Amino acid sequence: MNTIESSGHNIYFDTKLAPLAEIIEKGTYSNIFVFADRNTAEACLPVFREMLDDFSGFDLIETDPGEENKNIDFCIGIWKTLLDFEADRKCLMINLGGGVITDMGGFVASTYKRGIDFINIPTTLLSQVDASVGGKTGIDIDNVKNMVGTFTLPQAVFIEAEFLKTVPKREMLSGFAEMIKHGLIADEKYYQELKAANYQNITTAAIHRSVEIKNEVVTEDPLEKGKRKILNFGHTIGHAVESYSLSKDKKPLTHGEAIAIGMICEAWLSHKNSTLSAEELAEIRAYISSVYPAYKIKEKSFDKLSALMQSDKKNEHGNILFSLLESIGKCTWNCRVAESDIRESMEYYNLTYVK
Amino acid sequence: MNTIESSGHNIYFDTKLAPLAEIIEKGTYSNIFVFADRNTAEACLPVFREMLDDFSGFDLIETDPGEENKNIDFCIGIWKTLLDFEADRKCLMINLGGGVITDMGGFVASTYKRGIDFINIPTTLLSQVDASVGGKTGIDIDNVKNMVGTFTLPQAVFIEAEFLKTVPKREMLSGFAEMIKHGLIADEKYYQELKAANYQNITTAAIHRSVEIKNEVVTEDPLEKGKRKILNFGHTIGHAVESYSLSKDKKPLTHGEAIAIGMICEAWLSHKNSTLSAEELAEIRAYISSVYPAYKIKEKSFDKLSALMQSDKKNEHGNILFSLLESIGKCTWNCRVAESDIRESMEYYNLTYVK
Repeated sequence: MNTIESSGHNIYFDTKLAPLAEIIEKGTYSNIFVFADRNTAEACLPVFREMLDDFSGFDLIETDPGEENKNIDFCIGIWKTLLDFEADRKCLMINLGGGVITDMGGFVASTYKRGIDFINIPTTLLSQVDASVGGKTGIDIDNVKNMVGTFTLPQAVFIEAEFLKTVPKREMLSGFAEMIKHGLIADEKYYQELKAANYQNITTAAIHRSVEIKNEVVTEDPLEKGKRKILNFGHTIGHAVESYSLSKDKKPLTHGEAIAIGMICEAWLSHKNSTLSAEELAEIRAYISSVYPAYKIKEKSFDKLSALMQSDKKNEHGNILFSLLESIGKCTWNCRVAESDIRESMEYYNLTYVK
Repeated sequence: MNTIESSGHNIYFDTKLAPLAEIIEKGTYSNIFVFADRNTAEACLPVFREMLDDFSGFDLIETDPGEENKNIDFCIGIWKTLLDFEADRKCLMINLGGGVITDMGGFVASTYKRGIDFINIPTTLLSQVDASVGGKTGIDIDNVKNMVGTFTLPQAVFIEAEFLKTVPKREMLSGFAEMIKHGLIADEKYYQELKAANYQNITTAAIHRSVEIKNEVVTEDPLEKGKRKILNFGHTIGHAVESYSLSKDKKPLTHGEAIAIGMICEAWLSHKNSTLSAEELAEIRAYISSVYPAYKIKEKSFDKLSALMQSDKKNEHGNILFSLLESIGKCTWNCRVAESDIRESMEYYNLTYVK
């Protein structure tokens, strides 16, 4: 599979980490740290070491798994650990894990002594197609997602299908939602291909296409001043639903499940406020609801969800701004939408699973 | 006085904030925050408002004064305050104060929602000639200085002599040490001019020359991969002495007093390990000791000071690296020095005030 060239670094596919072995062999780094959570350390570290010929010349920095730990307290812990190891600016941090690990590890690396090199090895589908590419690092503050972070590019990204073998189906579906999004915002043909293929059988070729789409967008607009916002399609409402679910539901939605909901809502907004046709709206709802389980957005949560949307990073001058589809494969951004439309879009979603 | 052009932004001298008034009038910012500590809010905010025609269209974010508060807890407080104000990415943060304010405010701004615009208005001599220029932001972790931060440039820097009127003499001398350093590392003529002038009468022209020197160096090497390290002359030992004094002395050294000590020590190292002549070493010691008060580096602190130097950000691969003078006006960097030499340089300093 091809390597994708991004700004100043490569994204490697199924290389068995061979280019990383070369980087390590060169020996220009003073220390190598592997950052992982307890779960990935158990499931992925043996694979990582095996690919690197039983490499053991690193120190492991372990954290607790889960989005709720992507916070400043854990960052402080990692900064202090690096200090304890007397890590200098010439050390390398390898983030091995899902989006929590690559987001938080990237943030710690981009700020420790004003920046050390880091490499992302995403081990979930979600982080392979989304978090690991584009240079966004971040942590949550008061459960508001990625409120603090930087735009900092890694030295390299390694995508290895091998790591996906242990990812549970529900987590695979979580990543798959971002792939659907890539099709919807930028490539109708790819959307149709994803739909035609069995979603339980995701190929490296499909992952490659998703990364390619994301990479094209972020290379054009690295600091999200404009076009990059299309990657937020489904995320304005989706993020709010996700945050709400995290704080209220016994078994919270995954990121992808929330984004699936967000995409149906925002497809409705695209039909109401942009040029998405009624047919394409129906198509999107039918397909997404055939893949993702039913969920009820409670009416009593609408106010809280609105408040959460107010802190969305795309907003400007107090307006909630949406990225909306013009058609399947084409997306625009910075769209203002009436508060009543946002509510109606969620009511529309709630009807999705009513037969 | 001339404006200095830096990478992508201007450094304005004695403009009475006129260009800032223009920026505010344009009205493209969704919110304007002024970040200051209690002391600068009292002493400088009235001057700031008066220069801007009684401008009041901002929210004040106030913090406790002092280096000991340049920490992550205060950052978290400011991030949360911005969240409470529903500040979006289009807001502007104006850092009004000394180095603690511009360092910490810059760090908060460079990471809030992955980066908002900020402007530095340094109100002490030290921050005017040092902290406000060059894009370094940072906070202390466990009292280790600037362990966490970013390289992020402000939108503009405003240097106003007006603010210096209320700065106490000891604080002026603290900034003056950095000006002496600029002469020593890059411009012998400027060093001689500083010496010839009365140090109690520092002109905007001299400040301008210091900023010019610093700006030339940081523009050439913004990320401190090489040449920028010359700005750390006097700081390897100076920072260690400063940290130690902060934690132990009843009346701790100012930054400049510690750097003055560091410059004498490192001038000795420059004579021993580089090409600085015995005459120039004597000259530097004589001049600096005529300006700064006597201090005793306690022998029992040497081990602790060495440990502090180990965490210096210039270090690589476990080696403490120094920036050393080749002559007055010329500096080199990445110099390894024997541990015994470091001790001896401090003993040399201790003899400075023995007549």
